[in-house]
Amino acid sequence: MQIGIIGLGKMGFNLALNLKRNEYQVVAQDVNTDFVAKIGHEGIEMAYTVEELCQKLSGRKVIWLMVPAGEIVDAVIHALLPYLSPNDILIDGGNSNFNDSKRRYSKLKTLGIDFLDCGTSGGTSGALHGACTMIGGDPEVFDYVAKVFKDISVENGSLYTGAAGSGHFTKMVHNGIEYGMMQSIAEGFEVFEHSEFDIDFQKTAKLFNHGSVVRSWLMELTENAFAKDPKLDGIKGIMHSSGEGKWTLETALDLGVPTPVIALSIMMRYRSQMSDTFSGKVVAALRNEFGGHAVEKNE
Amino acid sequence: MQIGIIGLGKMGFNLALNLKRNEYQVVAQDVNTDFVAKIGHEGIEMAYTVEELCQKLSGRKVIWLMVPAGEIVDAVIHALLPYLSPNDILIDGGNSNFNDSKRRYSKLKTLGIDFLDCGTSGGTSGALHGACTMIGGDPEVFDYVAKVFKDISVENGSLYTGAAGSGHFTKMVHNGIEYGMMQSIAEGFEVFEHSEFDIDFQKTAKLFNHGSVVRSWLMELTENAFAKDPKLDGIKGIMHSSGEGKWTLETALDLGVPTPVIALSIMMRYRSQMSDTFSGKVVAALRNEFGGHAVEKNE
Repeated sequence: MQIGIIGLGKMGFNLALNLKRNEYQVVAQDVNTDFVAKIGHEGIEMAYTVEELCQKLSGRKVIWLMVPAGEIVDAVIHALLPYLSPNDILIDGGNSNFNDSKRRYSKLKTLGIDFLDCGTSGGTSGALHGACTMIGGDPEVFDYVAKVFKDISVENGSLYTGAAGSGHFTKMVHNGIEYGMMQSIAEGFEVFEHSEFDIDFQKTAKLFNHGSVVRSWLMELTENAFAKDPKLDGIKGIMHSSGEGKWTLETALDLGVPTPVIALSIMMRYRSQMSDTFSGKVVAALRNEFGGHAVEKNE
Repeated sequence: MQIGIIGLGKMGFNLALNLKRNEYQVVAQDVNTDFVAKIGHEGIEMAYTVEELCQKLSGRKVIWLMVPAGEIVDAVIHALLPYLSPNDILIDGGNSNFNDSKRRYSKLKTLGIDFLDCGTSGGTSGALHGACTMIGGDPEVFDYVAKVFKDISVENGSLYTGAAGSGHFTKMVHNGIEYGMMQSIAEGFEVFEHSEFDIDFQKTAKLFNHGSVVRSWLMELTENAFAKDPKLDGIKGIMHSSGEGKWTLETALDLGVPTPVIALSIMMRYRSQMSDTFSGKVVAALRNEFGGHAVEKNE
């Protein structure tokens, strides 16, 4: 089977190699021509434009988008439309918001184009060696490419999740869970770090991965991180995020569902991005106003 | 080597079997004579009193306490003292507060009795087949029984954590992390449960264990739970707790360390134990006072 890939960043590049290893005929395109040349060195068919990509795909086209979430997905779909035929299949394997995926599915439906939303977990190593994929869309469209998802995923690592949007929705919630788990692990080690005991973080994380209740891939990554830098002295505790935790919280708010741990995980990320807070100034000022408590002044 | 075990509940009973399988000569005692008789049927030497237990142990005695945290530990130690000799070793393998363990260590030190605090994770199946143990106390005392901990634990599942109290401290923080991870997983499935999609919880938990970032033993247990009861219709969402999460939060407060996710995990457990809240009544009443918003009345 031929598969077109658009977007050769860390995820798309590795996915292309994964597909090739699984003996798919891959045609790969990116706006960055260096990336295209680089994938060409891997023995993968190159395309420098979406037009060229589509020309190199015959029959019912299957095109996998692995581009950053947001307007770029719409732009790529818009650019593709002139070269697509009815029942061609677009797969959005990026981290799109599930509401966008529902909208894109509906719009493409009116044009006769099939659309699947595929949440992809497991990081760049997963994209290369075996990912975890969750796919929403029409069941008959999924069936047409089910083997592709199965082949590029680890065993049991591929699931048809239901209606359009449900793949990206499932991935979004997965990331919300991930935020809370990471923050929880992090808070435990914060307590260790400030404690009266001389806790060896790497040994403790390693211990926790052998027979304890909290054993997990994230705890293995914790162990790896401490193995490289025992006290993490080399990095700052600034936590960025890429949207899916926020969307999980927004969805919970829309549904009227309490998710305090996921919410606080996100708030702690935002707090970490500030060197000082205005809310801190307000509280300090108020304590000074009512009780004469000392404030720390800016120089 | 001979080892005495006091406390034959779910953990102590399985630990006794685990030790026996590892060819230790176990002498087992419990205040519940049924438990003693039951362990006797497993071919383990029985003792009906702590005096009898001590009489059956020769040389430098090693006695493992597996009794509920709190006053019972002090009571058992008090009952044992007349039968102990200098350098006999007491191991508290229960879920004691690390501050209690520090106090017990110091008091026993003045009496010449050696004390180790051993945090034990992995549940009852771990106690039987291979636990995760973290041990605090004097290094030379640990060395004397290091092989015991190694033998009853999974490979790499045993760690000397340092000074007295550090074993139970490490286990306490482990449980704090566990609270946050569990609440995070739970909140994700709460969002699934209220969503517009028809998410299969068991299949999704299973998927998450194959290649995703959140793969973990807790997610495997989540999968098991949904396999038994697809929507958990058979149980109530009332979450009890046994103290270690609370101690983690208390410790964080004493240290002045922010642990919002662990804190909220505990608060959500308390909330789950209430069918209604007084705070809810206060907010409803206030909304009614200032805005005339409707309140829901008690019948």
